[in-house]
Amino acid sequence: MEKLHQLTINTLKERGVTIESIAEIVYDLQKDYTDNLTIEYCQETILSVLKKREVIYAILVGIALDKGAEQGLFTKEINEVILDDNSLFGIDEILALSIINVYGSIALTNFGYVDKIKPFIIGKLNRLGEQKKQCTTFLDDLVAAIAAASASKMAHDRLKKEDNV
Amino acid sequence: MEKLHQLTINTLKERGVTIESIAEIVYDLQKDYTDNLTIEYCQETILSVLKKREVIYAILVGIALDKGAEQGLFTKEINEVILDDNSLFGIDEILALSIINVYGSIALTNFGYVDKIKPFIIGKLNRLGEQKKQCTTFLDDLVAAIAAASASKMAHDRLKKEDNV
Amino acid sequence: MEKLHQLTINTLKERGVTIESIAEIVYDLQKDYTDNLTIEYCQETILSVLKKREVIYAILVGIALDKGAEQGLFTKEINEVILDDNSLFGIDEILALSIINVYGSIALTNFGYVDKIKPFIIGKLNRLGEQKKQCTTFLDDLVAAIAAASASKMAHDRLKKEDNV
Amino acid sequence: MEKLHQLTINTLKERGVTIESIAEIVYDLQKDYTDNLTIEYCQETILSVLKKREVIYAILVGIALDKGAEQGLFTKEINEVILDDNSLFGIDEILALSIINVYGSIALTNFGYVDKIKPFIIGKLNRLGEQKKQCTTFLDDLVAAIAAASASKMAHDRLKKEDNV
Repeated sequence: MEKLHQLTINTLKERGVTIESIAEIVYDLQKDYTDNLTIEYCQETILSVLKKREVIYAILVGIALDKGAEQGLFTKEINEVILDDNSLFGIDEILALSIINVYGSIALTNFGYVDKIKPFIIGKLNRLGEQKKQCTTFLDDLVAAIAAASASKMAHDRLKKEDNV
Repeated sequence: MEKLHQLTINTLKERGVTIESIAEIVYDLQKDYTDNLTIEYCQETILSVLKKREVIYAILVGIALDKGAEQGLFTKEINEVILDDNSLFGIDEILALSIINVYGSIALTNFGYVDKIKPFIIGKLNRLGEQKKQCTTFLDDLVAAIAAASASKMAHDRLKKEDNV
Repeated sequence: MEKLHQLTINTLKERGVTIESIAEIVYDLQKDYTDNLTIEYCQETILSVLKKREVIYAILVGIALDKGAEQGLFTKEINEVILDDNSLFGIDEILALSIINVYGSIALTNFGYVDKIKPFIIGKLNRLGEQKKQCTTFLDDLVAAIAAASASKMAHDRLKKEDNV
Repeated sequence: MEKLHQLTINTLKERGVTIESIAEIVYDLQKDYTDNLTIEYCQETILSVLKKREVIYAILVGIALDKGAEQGLFTKEINEVILDDNSLFGIDEILALSIINVYGSIALTNFGYVDKIKPFIIGKLNRLGEQKKQCTTFLDDLVAAIAAASASKMAHDRLKKEDNV
């Protein structure tokens, strides 16, 4: 899985998404709940989320669908449906959910929030998609899910620490 | 089911949640997407959501748990866990999810957003819960789910109409 | 959506799955619960399930991934992961779930059962996959989901009829 | 959580479900996949599943609802709906799902299978429910979920070991 972990990081970067850009979202989600939160801690948490099998597969498959549609690899109708990013398509959110499910209900709330307000890199991806410069149908939901899962992991870790005190 | 539909509306009211108070949230969620949106249309949509079997059962069971914990009907530990409303409890979000699942991925996004920013009646319920004046552990998530489901239903109905044009 | 409905039926056929072959599974799942069950009624129900937006998209995307992996359209690692059909991959079940979620908890039970015992066409697809004659990683789960959803639809329709009596 | 873990084991026992009776199901699910499988290993795995926060809460809340309905603690309509165990109720499966989600897609398949064939203790609970001797509306689904989650945990642990070889 270590090889696939690296491939996931590289594939995200190739599509315009760095760990730093996801960390901005996570920092914003958690800054009111964690004292002395650093951007480095956000990045570390994101990297640990990106080691999970379910997360890796969802990202790699989702980006393969975005790229495949851009390159016209699928049947005409499938290419169109993916490129179109209609809000009733739903398969993009389903892949995002497979990331979120692993991280419990806090992840779900954070995902919905981030998917709605589209902060930082997610807003940028969304605009690239609307301008038809890049197919980001799956990518924007996946990034929202990674950020939400990472913020949720930080909340869980913090609550567990408090439990033990 | 008609009898249970009425019971659901009455039980919500008894716990401090009117259709009007949910309509404020739905209006706010949809006002940027629907021309000439009226509060009456929001109320109608909420009422139609409250006719669904899955929605009715989730609300009635969730409120029975809130009330049961208030009245100390369960084992001591269960009463405490429900009254505590710890963010790692998760069963409250699970019941909310059973409402949302029926309304697709737009409902999920709206739920997360509403659950995060806690607008109108949801903020009020949350404060009542924190002040230990009323157990709202399940109720606030259920109301967020009803609002999110209703906004999603309006979005679906609108998109279907556009599809046909 | 009518065009996509036809495309879905044709794409399933092209991959070796006819409506008749799915009807055998549905008949078997429902024969103990429905009096005078006919194979024609099973086929009709399957066709109505295949008209649902969520169902159509899940099938078309899943089969596009199976075919893409066969043809080596994706990055080497993605092709391998899809062709391998490891039980920890999970994205195939996630797509199947997006079909099942729409049809409630009876669909879930039926899906698990069918996915476990692999009756009729599902067993055949599974063997084709194991013999590396066809990539059926997504297809076998999708067919199980269509069958489970159809059996669930028949159960719901029957229970609703009984409710009204 | 250690106290709640013990409470969960005791509450299951009080309702007629021992770790041994769940182990019979798990053994049956896994005997074809694991060499030299012992009933002791099944019991150990079940106990480790019963330590998970999500699992504990789902079991305690579900059994509180079964017992509450038996004792007539809730509104008349709620008591009736829970005692009735109609297949369209769905909240019982929702609580079961919150256990299963944590253990991935193998757990889902196992759950559906077990919920359908109702082996060992699950069949017994189901008959007690049908004979109105005990309300087992939530309990039978919860036991199916514990068994499915445990079998899935064993499969994951085995596959991880193979990965490392």
